[in-house]
Amino acid sequence: MDPRVRARTSRLLVQLAPKQAAATIAYQEMSKAQKKASFEAYYRQFADELVAELSEFEMPDEAVRYIKRMIDYTLPGGKMNRGLSVITTYSHLVGNRPLTEDELCKASVLGWCVEWLQAYFLVADDVMDRSVTRRDQPCWYLNEDVGLIAVNDSFILESGVYRLLKKHFEGDAKYATYLELFHEVSYQTQLGQLLDLRTSPEGSGPTLDNFSLHKHHLVVKYKTAFYSFYLPVALGMTMAGITDSKLYDTARDILVDMGVYFQVQDDFLDWWQDPEVLGKVGTDIQDNKCSWPVVTVLDKCSAADRAVLEKHYARDDPASVEIVKNLYRKYDVEGVYNAYQDKMIAQLTARIAQVTDLPPAIFTDFLDKIAYRQK
Amino acid sequence: MDPRVRARTSRLLVQLAPKQAAATIAYQEMSKAQKKASFEAYYRQFADELVAELSEFEMPDEAVRYIKRMIDYTLPGGKMNRGLSVITTYSHLVGNRPLTEDELCKASVLGWCVEWLQAYFLVADDVMDRSVTRRDQPCWYLNEDVGLIAVNDSFILESGVYRLLKKHFEGDAKYATYLELFHEVSYQTQLGQLLDLRTSPEGSGPTLDNFSLHKHHLVVKYKTAFYSFYLPVALGMTMAGITDSKLYDTARDILVDMGVYFQVQDDFLDWWQDPEVLGKVGTDIQDNKCSWPVVTVLDKCSAADRAVLEKHYARDDPASVEIVKNLYRKYDVEGVYNAYQDKMIAQLTARIAQVTDLPPAIFTDFLDKIAYRQK
Repeated sequence: MDPRVRARTSRLLVQLAPKQAAATIAYQEMSKAQKKASFEAYYRQFADELVAELSEFEMPDEAVRYIKRMIDYTLPGGKMNRGLSVITTYSHLVGNRPLTEDELCKASVLGWCVEWLQAYFLVADDVMDRSVTRRDQPCWYLNEDVGLIAVNDSFILESGVYRLLKKHFEGDAKYATYLELFHEVSYQTQLGQLLDLRTSPEGSGPTLDNFSLHKHHLVVKYKTAFYSFYLPVALGMTMAGITDSKLYDTARDILVDMGVYFQVQDDFLDWWQDPEVLGKVGTDIQDNKCSWPVVTVLDKCSAADRAVLEKHYARDDPASVEIVKNLYRKYDVEGVYNAYQDKMIAQLTARIAQVTDLPPAIFTDFLDKIAYRQK
Repeated sequence: MDPRVRARTSRLLVQLAPKQAAATIAYQEMSKAQKKASFEAYYRQFADELVAELSEFEMPDEAVRYIKRMIDYTLPGGKMNRGLSVITTYSHLVGNRPLTEDELCKASVLGWCVEWLQAYFLVADDVMDRSVTRRDQPCWYLNEDVGLIAVNDSFILESGVYRLLKKHFEGDAKYATYLELFHEVSYQTQLGQLLDLRTSPEGSGPTLDNFSLHKHHLVVKYKTAFYSFYLPVALGMTMAGITDSKLYDTARDILVDMGVYFQVQDDFLDWWQDPEVLGKVGTDIQDNKCSWPVVTVLDKCSAADRAVLEKHYARDDPASVEIVKNLYRKYDVEGVYNAYQDKMIAQLTARIAQVTDLPPAIFTDFLDKIAYRQK
């Protein structure tokens, strides 16, 4: 870390001297694979804790087996970036000193709570979107004995967040703040999902009148950015004892904008990138998504071209998809994207440089991972 | 109140002298209709608060209108017994003195949070059960522009509980306890719903092997009794400053058993009571419900009669329904019910009489409402 930045953050770090502890873990020296393996090991522990306490709730064996299977189906298998970010953030905030085992465990609880929250949303989203696959396996609700029970399963996943928090933080002075963060971000995500679902309702055909750059920005900000970018950092900050609300505002402003940029990339790559590189075939056009390329074109196209979009967007036939893609080319979506990307990275970099009371690495880590990504 | 009981509860009441306040409300002197009208007026205030703050979340007008419509469709129109019980409980706990306006408002917030929690479950249950009507109107998800968006709407209703608690209790020493109560009871209800859904899965035909008196007891206890009977009283107790966990255990034990008895009544009346009196036509037999009459018969019937049930339960034709009802008569479900009812009322009355540290009215109020009910 730049020595001047370290000096600026010293006020913060001085409160966070290493705790006395038998074993410590030099987290920053672990490889990416080691960090992931450590985090995955904690998954087993936390999932087993939730399953074990079901006997306190008198659940019969069949229900216990079902819940265990449901958790093991829906939780692991993702990239776990959100969960891992909690630990990385905390590690930066304490000055990259080794973490005690207790600290690593607590940060891992918070990290897995983010993953549990995501599983809750994904299981329900797949039902609402009638999706088919998720993380290279059939969506949970498509399992033969599941169906709409998946809705209640998503509730049980959400409760997992609060069970884990209670088990590991009851009596901790930060417990109430953790609860509030999850409540707040859950609500934001639900409002984003509402905007998304109402903007392109199922089976409605094209709904371009609902689409706009502003609407796209709102959907992305609420549905994704808060829980994926802000929440992990805010949890790490809370665990590090930060209470100044201005610092949370600073983090939120930067991270939410970074989350929006991340989703614009996603939308752009969905049509632009070779499926071989992307790892999937983009279907945003066929699926009537309020995606960034289409709102970019809508923002500047002629009435005639808007009519063409009206006719061919959200149609699941190759000729229509090609016509839409030709309009993306005609209005130089790639050029607009490149300019947007340069501008966003420059802006975010400048704003991060102005942060004086938080280690910039908690932001640059994120930004380095996503800047100019190709997939 | 019996003077001896008052003496026994004096330890509690002494901490709860009337607060100084400009206006007070003699709640216990209000008629049932006045209590309901007061509670309904608070509904409008709380719903408007939630809608108003949507602008802080940048929600566009269309989304605000949708959420307002959704709340106004799913929240009012029920009997509101659960919500009203919070206020009655609190009033008993403070010795039936007049309540201050602030107390009435706070108790009404907690009461409406119970109703919000119920709306969250009912909206989702109706989707999972493919129900058609609820409170004399089409289920919310059946509205033309809703469908599976109702799943996310149920999430938003659940968030309403935590928004209202935050708005009215942030900074209050009891805030964390309220949050925990709602988390705990939500989880219990979700586990009960899981048992119910797995016991008679949709489109499976009869699943008598899953049915038993024990299973019925578990489903009812978890799916209904905690949130309908224990939660309102526990909230009133918390608001009255009770912290002794033994008192909560006492209340839970009595109220959960009362809730089970209430549901047994529901199941019994579904087949036994004249639809004219009941106000609806019972369909538990056709719907493959793990209901009390069928588990009572299964508990004692011959192998031959079990085979008859196997053949005719869960079939939507009048002849099959009549055959099942004949078995209910053959095994004297009515007699078993009458004996069960006498025993439960005697047991509950005896247990309530033994309670020394809580005003018995918080239990007898409930019991008086349901004992020997005919509809």
